[in-house]
This record gives sequence, C-alpha cells and structure tokens, in this order.
Amino acid sequence: MTSKLRAAVVGSTGYGGVELLRLLLRHPYVEITSVISSSNAGTPITEGFPHLQHLLVDELDPVDIPLIQQKCDIVFTATPSGVSTKLVPQLVEAGLTVIDLSGDLRIKDAATYEQWYKHEAAPAAILEQAVYGLAEIYGEQVRDRKLISNPGCYPTAALLGLIPALKADWIDPHSIIIDAKSGVSGAGRKLGLNVHYAEINENFKPYKVNQHQHIPEIEQVLSDQMGQTITTTFTTHLVPMTRGILCTMYAQLQEKRSVSDFIDYYQSFYEGKPFVRIRPEGNWPATKEVWGSNYCDIGFAVDERTNRVTILSVIDNVVKGAAGQAVQNLNLMMGWDESLGLDFTPVYP
Amino acid sequence: MTSKLRAAVVGSTGYGGVELLRLLLRHPYVEITSVISSSNAGTPITEGFPHLQHLLVDELDPVDIPLIQQKCDIVFTATPSGVSTKLVPQLVEAGLTVIDLSGDLRIKDAATYEQWYKHEAAPAAILEQAVYGLAEIYGEQVRDRKLISNPGCYPTAALLGLIPALKADWIDPHSIIIDAKSGVSGAGRKLGLNVHYAEINENFKPYKVNQHQHIPEIEQVLSDQMGQTITTTFTTHLVPMTRGILCTMYAQLQEKRSVSDFIDYYQSFYEGKPFVRIRPEGNWPATKEVWGSNYCDIGFAVDERTNRVTILSVIDNVVKGAAGQAVQNLNLMMGWDESLGLDFTPVYP
Amino acid sequence: MTSKLRAAVVGSTGYGGVELLRLLLRHPYVEITSVISSSNAGTPITEGFPHLQHLLVDELDPVDIPLIQQKCDIVFTATPSGVSTKLVPQLVEAGLTVIDLSGDLRIKDAATYEQWYKHEAAPAAILEQAVYGLAEIYGEQVRDRKLISNPGCYPTAALLGLIPALKADWIDPHSIIIDAKSGVSGAGRKLGLNVHYAEINENFKPYKVNQHQHIPEIEQVLSDQMGQTITTTFTTHLVPMTRGILCTMYAQLQEKRSVSDFIDYYQSFYEGKPFVRIRPEGNWPATKEVWGSNYCDIGFAVDERTNRVTILSVIDNVVKGAAGQAVQNLNLMMGWDESLGLDFTPVYP
Amino acid sequence: MTSKLRAAVVGSTGYGGVELLRLLLRHPYVEITSVISSSNAGTPITEGFPHLQHLLVDELDPVDIPLIQQKCDIVFTATPSGVSTKLVPQLVEAGLTVIDLSGDLRIKDAATYEQWYKHEAAPAAILEQAVYGLAEIYGEQVRDRKLISNPGCYPTAALLGLIPALKADWIDPHSIIIDAKSGVSGAGRKLGLNVHYAEINENFKPYKVNQHQHIPEIEQVLSDQMGQTITTTFTTHLVPMTRGILCTMYAQLQEKRSVSDFIDYYQSFYEGKPFVRIRPEGNWPATKEVWGSNYCDIGFAVDERTNRVTILSVIDNVVKGAAGQAVQNLNLMMGWDESLGLDFTPVYP
Repeated sequence: MTSKLRAAVVGSTGYGGVELLRLLLRHPYVEITSVISSSNAGTPITEGFPHLQHLLVDELDPVDIPLIQQKCDIVFTATPSGVSTKLVPQLVEAGLTVIDLSGDLRIKDAATYEQWYKHEAAPAAILEQAVYGLAEIYGEQVRDRKLISNPGCYPTAALLGLIPALKADWIDPHSIIIDAKSGVSGAGRKLGLNVHYAEINENFKPYKVNQHQHIPEIEQVLSDQMGQTITTTFTTHLVPMTRGILCTMYAQLQEKRSVSDFIDYYQSFYEGKPFVRIRPEGNWPATKEVWGSNYCDIGFAVDERTNRVTILSVIDNVVKGAAGQAVQNLNLMMGWDESLGLDFTPVYP
Repeated sequence: MTSKLRAAVVGSTGYGGVELLRLLLRHPYVEITSVISSSNAGTPITEGFPHLQHLLVDELDPVDIPLIQQKCDIVFTATPSGVSTKLVPQLVEAGLTVIDLSGDLRIKDAATYEQWYKHEAAPAAILEQAVYGLAEIYGEQVRDRKLISNPGCYPTAALLGLIPALKADWIDPHSIIIDAKSGVSGAGRKLGLNVHYAEINENFKPYKVNQHQHIPEIEQVLSDQMGQTITTTFTTHLVPMTRGILCTMYAQLQEKRSVSDFIDYYQSFYEGKPFVRIRPEGNWPATKEVWGSNYCDIGFAVDERTNRVTILSVIDNVVKGAAGQAVQNLNLMMGWDESLGLDFTPVYP
Repeated sequence: MTSKLRAAVVGSTGYGGVELLRLLLRHPYVEITSVISSSNAGTPITEGFPHLQHLLVDELDPVDIPLIQQKCDIVFTATPSGVSTKLVPQLVEAGLTVIDLSGDLRIKDAATYEQWYKHEAAPAAILEQAVYGLAEIYGEQVRDRKLISNPGCYPTAALLGLIPALKADWIDPHSIIIDAKSGVSGAGRKLGLNVHYAEINENFKPYKVNQHQHIPEIEQVLSDQMGQTITTTFTTHLVPMTRGILCTMYAQLQEKRSVSDFIDYYQSFYEGKPFVRIRPEGNWPATKEVWGSNYCDIGFAVDERTNRVTILSVIDNVVKGAAGQAVQNLNLMMGWDESLGLDFTPVYP
Repeated sequence: MTSKLRAAVVGSTGYGGVELLRLLLRHPYVEITSVISSSNAGTPITEGFPHLQHLLVDELDPVDIPLIQQKCDIVFTATPSGVSTKLVPQLVEAGLTVIDLSGDLRIKDAATYEQWYKHEAAPAAILEQAVYGLAEIYGEQVRDRKLISNPGCYPTAALLGLIPALKADWIDPHSIIIDAKSGVSGAGRKLGLNVHYAEINENFKPYKVNQHQHIPEIEQVLSDQMGQTITTTFTTHLVPMTRGILCTMYAQLQEKRSVSDFIDYYQSFYEGKPFVRIRPEGNWPATKEVWGSNYCDIGFAVDERTNRVTILSVIDNVVKGAAGQAVQNLNLMMGWDESLGLDFTPVYP
C-alpha cells in the first residue's frame, strides 16, 4: 500500500476503545489519527490510561464530525448504548466508513430493540445498511461494505458454538439452553457496585436472568440462519476475573451423535477460519487459553444417557468479543488477510 | 449437660478437616479431644495451619483405633476418597459414632460406586447402616443414628434446589440440567496443576463434563425422592475463587407457574429449616452472600417464552457443603438445636 | 446481666458498619436496636446486603438524635470522614456513649487534622474527651469512658508492631520505614475507579505515597509513647484482595539483637492480650492467617549484615482494623471480658 | 536477511519457556525449530499448554546436544536451578549460542553461589564467559557475545530503579531497603502449597525474608557499578496475582533533591532505552500498566521530613523479568533493533 488507513476510535476511555488502540497500534496497514472522547476531550489519553505512555501522546479529540472527516478514513465507535443510534448516522452521512461496537445497530427490528434496550432505536435506513459482522458466518457480506455492526461478546461465543450443529440439524432448535459466564470487563469501565472489587472478588453471581439484551441478538441470528423463529434460554453470570467468556450450551440431539462426529463436522465447518479452534475429544476449553487473543475455542461432550450434547465455547470478550473482531471485520471489509494485526498468541499464564 | 461430647477429626490437614476445627472450637457442647492425621502425626497442627496458633496447641494424633476409643465419643472422618471404606468399619466396630465427610458411604449400590469412584466400595453392611445426611430432607432419619454419610458439596446445593419442585410435580423429571460452578477449595489441599494459582487465577474452566462422581449421588437421591429413576445432565466448572458453589438448574415446567408460585411453595416447604433462605422475586443469590455460613440460598426465574424454570442455589462448599452440614447432622443426631455452633453471619465483603 | 445493651450502628451501609452488624449479632450482651443510614433510611437493610436476610429484618432508621436516644444506649459511628465531626458532639450531648470508627476524632491537634483531612476538625472539647482506643496499649484508659475514637486500620497494624521495640529502645526512632499493603475493603464501599474490579484485579499499586492521612495518626501515637517527636516514612499499596493488611517495617537496631530476643520480649510485652500472637522464629504471618478474626500476628527477621530488624504485622483490616477493635473497646469500656463476641477462628482457606 | 535464526527453547514446560514461545512466534527474524523438555519429550506441546493449539504442533524434543546442534543456532535455557550449571557448558562446547534464563550463571563468585543456591556452581570458565544481560546497563557488553546470563526478575526491577540514583551519588549506598512484591508466576509451574490457589488467593504474605537468592545478584551488580561493596535489605512478598513485580525502594538522600530532579535525571539516564518509562510527578506505576509488555516503569516520591526518596519500579516478571529481556538480549547480541518482536502494548485491563 502507498499509505496507511487513517482510523479514529470514539469511546476511547472504555475498555473496548482502549483495546482497539492496543490492536491498531500494531496493525501494519492502519494508523490511529484520532482518539476521541466526548467526556475527556482535551486531556491526554495517558491521564486515564498510564499504560499507554510513550505509545500515544496526543490529546483526546472531541466528537466533531468535520474534524473526523478531515483526519480519518474509518471510525470505530465503541460508545455506550444509545450514543451510536445518533452518532453513526452522522458519520455515515459524512461519508465515513464505520465499525460500530455498541449494540445499537445489531437488532434489525426497532420494536424489539426498544423493548430490550429501553431507548429509541436507530433510523431504519441505518439498521438496514449495517451488516452484522460475525466474521466466521457473515464474512462474505462484510466485504466492501461501509457500515458494520460488530457482534456482542456473549452472542459471538454462543453463536459460533451453536450454528454448525443447528445448521446440520443435529440438535433440536427448541431445546437450546445457554449458560453463559463472563469476566467483569464485559460490564465496562462505568462505576457501579456491580463492578466494585470487594463485591465481585471471591464471588460468583447470576445477573439479568432471562433479561439480558443479548438474548434477542442471539435469537435473531439463529432464526436467520435456520429460517424459523428460534427461542433460547440464556443465563448470564459474573465471574471474578477480568477477561473471558465461557458458554456452556445444552441441546437435545435429534439422533445419536458422538463427540468425534461433532469434532469432525465442526473442523470442516470452520476450515479456513483461522480464529476458530476445535478441541480434541476429552479436552474442553478454558477462558485463559484464549486470553488476549482473537481465538474462539470450542469443545464437546455427549451424554448418551440423556441424549444431550454439551457445547463449550470460550473467547476473550474484549478481543474476539469486541475489539479483535472489529479489526477482523476491518480486514475482511478491506479485502486484507483476515489475521492482520491479530496474530497474538494467548498470554499464558 | 454435665460434660461435653469428645470429638475427633480425622483428615485434619485437609480443608474439610480444618473447617471442622473452626466450627467445633465454638460449639458449646463439643470438645475437640483429638486431631488426627495419618500423614503428619506427631507434628503440631500449627505447622501446617499457622492460623490456628493459640487455639489448638496439641500435636496431631495418628490413626490409632484404641487411642481414638479412649479419647473420643464421636469421630468426623474428612478423609480422601478410598480411606473411609476401610477406616469407618473399624471405627463403627469400636463402638464409635461416625460422621463421614468423604464420599465413600454415599452411594448405596457398590457397583455404581466402583464405576464412578474407580476403587472398591465399602462393605454392604456399612453402606446400609449409613444415613445420608442431607439435613433438611433426611433430618428425621439422622436422629439417634451412629453413622452418618455427609452429602457432597454439589449434591447439597443441587438437591435443596430441585427436590421441592420435583416433589410437587411442577417440573419434568427428565428435563433437568444442572450447570454447577465451584470455588477451588472443593478440590482439596492436594497439589496439582488443577489448583496451581497461575493456572486458575483469571481463568474459568469446565472439568469432568458428564463424568463427575457427584452425578450418581444426585440421581440416587432424586430417584429415591420420586420413586422412579431420574437422570440429569450435570456439568462442573472451576471458578477463580476459594469458596462457594452456585448451581444454575434448568427444567421444563409441567404447567405454567410464576416465580411467586415457586417462592411461596419453597418457603412453606422449608419452613422451620433455619439454613435455607428463599430469595424474593428478581433477587438471585450470589455465592458471597453465604460465605463462611451454613446457609443455602435459593432464587428463581421463569421464562414464559420457553416454559422453563431456572433455579439458582448457592452454598459455601466448605460449610454447608461439608463441615457445617456435618455439625448440623451432629446436632440432629444428638437431638440438639440444629443451629448450635452454626450461627455464623456470612462474612461480607 | 438482666438486660442487653442496646446498640445503634450509624453508617451501616459501609463495610465497617456491616461488619459491626456481623459481630454484634453474636455478642452475648448486646442487642442491635437501630441500624442507621442517612442515605438509605426507610429501605430494608437486606436491599443493599442480601446476605443479612433472615438476620436483620427491620428498615434502616434515619439519623434522628431523639429516636437514637430513645432506642439505644450506645452508638457506633462508622461514618465517612467529616460526618462524625458534626454528629458525635450531638450524640455525646444527648448522653449517649459513642465509639467512633471514622478518623475524625483521632488527631488531637486540629491544625494537623485539617492539613491531612482537608476539612474542619471536631470541636476541641470533643477531641479532648475522645480516648484513642488502641486496645492493647490504651486499654486501661478506655474503661468507663463514654467516647472512644477507634484507631485506623494501618495504624493498628503498624503501632502494635513498633511500640514494644521502640519502648525498649531497641530501634532507632528516626530510622522507621513502614511499607504497608492493604486489601481493597479498606477503601470502603464508595464507588471509584480505584475500586473497579477490572482496574484492581491482577494489579498491585502504590497510592498516596507519603500522603496518607494515617501518617499523623501513627506519628502522634509513637510520639506520645516515646515522649519525643517521631517521624516515619510510610507507603501504602493496594493488594488485589478484599481483606487484610500487612505492614513490613524496617528499623536500624540500636545494638545487636536476635530474632529470639524480639520474640521473647514481644511475648512478655503482650502477655494477657488475647488478640496479639507472636510468631516463632522463621515463621512470618500472612494476612489470610488472621482473616475474619480480631488477631494481630507479628513476626520478625534480623539482618545482621545491615543491622536492621524487619517487623511484620498482619490484621484483618475490617475486624481488628475497624469493627472488631470497636467491639473490643466496648468490652473494655464495660469491664467485660475483652474477647466477648470476638472468639472467631480465622476462616481458612 | 536471507534466512531466520533457528532457535531452541529448553525448559519449555515452565512459564519462562512458554513465554519465550509466545514472543519468538512473533519475532520477524527468528524461527523456533526445537522445543525441548527433559521431562515431557515425545509428547505434543499442546498437551500441557492447550492455548498453543494451531500455533506449534510438533512434539517436544529431548535434551540431545547433537540434535540441538543440527536443528538450531541459538538455545534459550529456561531450566530449573541446577540444570544449567551442567547443560550450558555442553551447549557452549558444541558451539551453540546460549541465553540462559536460569539463575545459575549470574553469580560470579562460586562460593557465594553455593551459599545461596545450595548446590554446586557452574565451572569458572563458563561463569567468566557469561555476560550479565541487564540490557539497559550492560547492553554494550552483550553485543556479539555467545553466552548471556539473563537477569533475575526482582534484580531487573530493583537495579533499573536504583542504579541511576546510586551512580549520581544522590543516595546513601548503605541505606538501601528494597521492599519487593511479586505475582505467583515467579515461583514457576512447579507444584507446592506455596502456589496452591486456595492458599494464595485473598492472601498477601512475606517469604524468604533476608534469604532470597536474588540478594547476592542485586548486591553484585550494585557493587560492580559503584566499585565498592554494597549491602541491601531485601524483602520478598507474594501477591495474589499471576504476573507483575513492584519494588518499593527506600534510600537516604545525600542532599536535598526533588521529585522533578529525579525525573529529569532518570529520563536523561535512560534516553534511547525504549523499555524504561519514567513517570511524571505524582504518578506512580502499577504492575498492570506494564502487564504483558517489556516495559519497566519507574516513579518517585521524596519525603522532605525524613530526607528519604522512595523509588517505585514495576515490570512484568515473565516478560522484562525473564523471556522479554532474553529476546531483548538476543536483539542486542545480533545487532538488531532492540525492540524487535517486543512491541507489545501492555494488555489493559
């Protein structure tokens, strides 16, 4: 290439935003030209994130569309819920390419969005334009598009684990139960008792049982994949750790299948997808084994006594569940190698 | 009383054993007269547990039946799997009362025991004699008995959550899925990579999926309660924390029921049981809320869309899941107030 | 006794307050008759602290002096800095006995208080009346008093470790360096990035270096004990854990002394003090070994090469560093056994 | 370059070894051609480290000098103490370039080594040949050498913080106290109660007080730098976290100096050294701010009242304290850019 793509990150004081900075700093074809924060514009990024010292020295820019237009080619919006519904239409109108990491553009049906998110949906034209960037499934649709809606963290882990089995018609689509567990970074950097160290440490807790806003996202994609309405039971729990999601997923088998059937089929399903790793029999993934990386690792168990399969899927919620998949979508969008800037070995231990 | 009951703790260098010491030190009717360790006999207990300094100064006794007979009235055996099958028959023959915290006497069917535990079962006469001490369910049977088999940690949490709904015939007994999570103390003090700090910290992992030895224990009790064979899907996960178990349990409703139906019914089911606390609607228990105490807290969610109930049950695995329930069984056995020596408020935070 | 002492806890929604509830619930001579919160009056205590369910069912009372007067004999004020300066004088004037857990009454010199605490000091008459309740040192002065200022967490650990060596003139009073480490509960339940789980977990950080408000408290007591002005270097660090303080303290020896000299002398210094435990040679205390208990454990190392002693002192900051010592002061004040309601074995693991 | 340097890692089943794999996998000029383990030869590396799946598929090689000679140009020895004393001489004799991460070649004086390490020292010729690779200080000496002894984790953090102040004669060399804290990975992957999760979690503990084998290493370098014998007081503590070291270092100022004096001087001292970052006034480094990276961040506080400086230095013990500095030494040795393969932004949060 003659010159690098100029990228802006909006919402850079959150965990999704700061992880984007970590990843983009090492991307060979991208240059970060603007780091944007509505709340902290004018202060240096290192004030809130001393670990970036010597790496990014400029001050935070305000949310100023003409300035963004002038300084950037692409904008990553890692904004709180409700901000992107208003900001993204302006960015799109200004001719900018946008990868949106908020949940605002994921739910295609405005009424459903408003029911689960409790505020107004984005304009219909924007929702229609946004491609849902679950990279391994919708990678083809992402190419050459200008507006990507980056998937949620739980949906990424759950969908990559469920879709192959569902599409093969190996599991009963009405029997799916997703027991999901996440580290605390998933709740963001916003203050609250729910992220207070002394409340979370040495504690394991369920939250938003049957009420999490990722339920309609998961069901929308499963229904889209299967051409029928699919409903799931989905429970979320908070784990006393910073990063990582594990989904333990249960479904009734349509007919007898072994673990090795699942392994073989999933391996062929995800052939050529560098970030999905299928585990050998008797080996189930732990969150630490993908920590800091863009991998999604998937393992299986079959209970012949109850004729159920258990599918276990792990990701790093901040990478594959947010910033990493956003960079993967950028690569797909631009026609670059899907792994560019994402060749991180998990950090262990 | 004129004099205190003289108690021995065997296996005092494990976590179940040392927790028994903490509880018995404060029990008004019990005196610890022998702390026994096969591996460390002759050394002071404070060598391995400096926190007991000034509290228990004597040396550890060996496993010596005549000595135990002479010094003690009751023996708590908190021994590794396979030890109690041999030791308990000798203690019983010596006329001692025994509360066994190992899993060796829980499975009534020797073949099933040997299939899951991979070593020889205890003699049939001993298995027959041992009362399964799930205190809230089998409390009546415990009274005046001489041999109690203390329940496992996961079964305690799972069974207290499931039994009322099953007995009321509110849930389909063939639909039960138990997604269980435990702190690391459940694995004991034995060394292994599975308890190495750097491997566990900032990690969440499944283990023994469909293979945990608590599966037959849970199914035996459910089948006994229902008078029919019940099979469940049971998954265990390791949480990066020391204490606590949460079971998230899913079942298909036989007919429409609300959360408040469940709350009302469970409250009446557990009336007069001081250690079960039913949570109000919209409030689900976290493990920290029972930390260090003998409580089992239970909460509910109903998903009308899928007609499933989610039952959430938490305990401190070292207390209600081991030493605390053993003391509760002692109290029941002796006809004392069930709560004696167990009036601990959860330690928070 | 014919009837129990009626106690109120003000600031019950903080960690010091809720720990007082845990301790007082088990105190044989005390009854909690009012739990007070200025911010949450009228709501049930279990709303903020579900672990108290079935233990304390009443609603929170407001800060209402006549109501307190009517319902209580003694008030524990576990209030944020700046509240007690105004509240305690009113309580005292109303004839109530007060044990103040805030730092507001500890610094005798108003100017020093205002320099370090950045707000107005309490009235001089109140400061004069308040006895500094470092129980093992000033226990005699506490008896029969009506106003106690409970020591800070860091000062408790540091002073119990330093005072004997200083009073024996074994260490150079101008050479003292205190390297202090605390769990996160010390920062209270107030929200902030400094207690956000994802910022604290897997992190160890210094804070307020040379600026902590416990510096003048430590120096005031050391100076009082020695009859000369003593200045120390004091550094505070945050440990990714909930409870526990360890102070590693360095001083130059006045002349050659062995570890066993220190052990013998400290044992005799603290003879009859049930909550100070001196560790044997080569054994240094860890915070977990006093967790949940009122103990202060102290160990020693001597470096002959540099002629320095290292004194290591640990406490549970919420117990001995706050609520436990407050109850100990209550016991001393009332002439009861110092250990009443405090006979907790450390919870291990 | 025409071809990549072929590297072997010995001791690949430990944390230093596996981190070398993570770093070398991304080094542009290096190819890992042999991963060696004496204990697990013949098994796949992914058996012990599932996170390496899809990254390194070969089986572990045995320790076989001719095989290493044939497959490799350079060997990283990340072996337990006592192994390198015997292995490195053989590798050197076979003409291989060696970077040794064990402590076996650091202490130049065999008697001192044997006193602290409790086993026989390496041959004198090897000790003489080995360059101590504290990269920022001895970088010039490393170039073109064939045998590097990589520094210890604590010494790296301590020495980078102390050397500038000492060399400027700003601090009294006899007054140095190093209060050091480390995450658990520093203890390696070897099993022991000292790394058992339930013993370490929610615990902070001192260990090896005045007895750590890094004491002679620190003193040897300080003495070498100053041309006089320097003795320090050095205390080590275990922090409940996986990675990170913080050294809080105290020294008496020779004359009055401000924090900004220190900052200016250290900035100029480390000019051109990409991995040392000096913090601005009032900002002290936390371990998480260098997590996963090769940085050493240093901050300062001056206490005018006691005329002492407090120097705070943090590193990731597995990176800058082991594998990262080894790669940095490789780069220096080969005359490459010092940062090659080490351009990791700290992972936050």
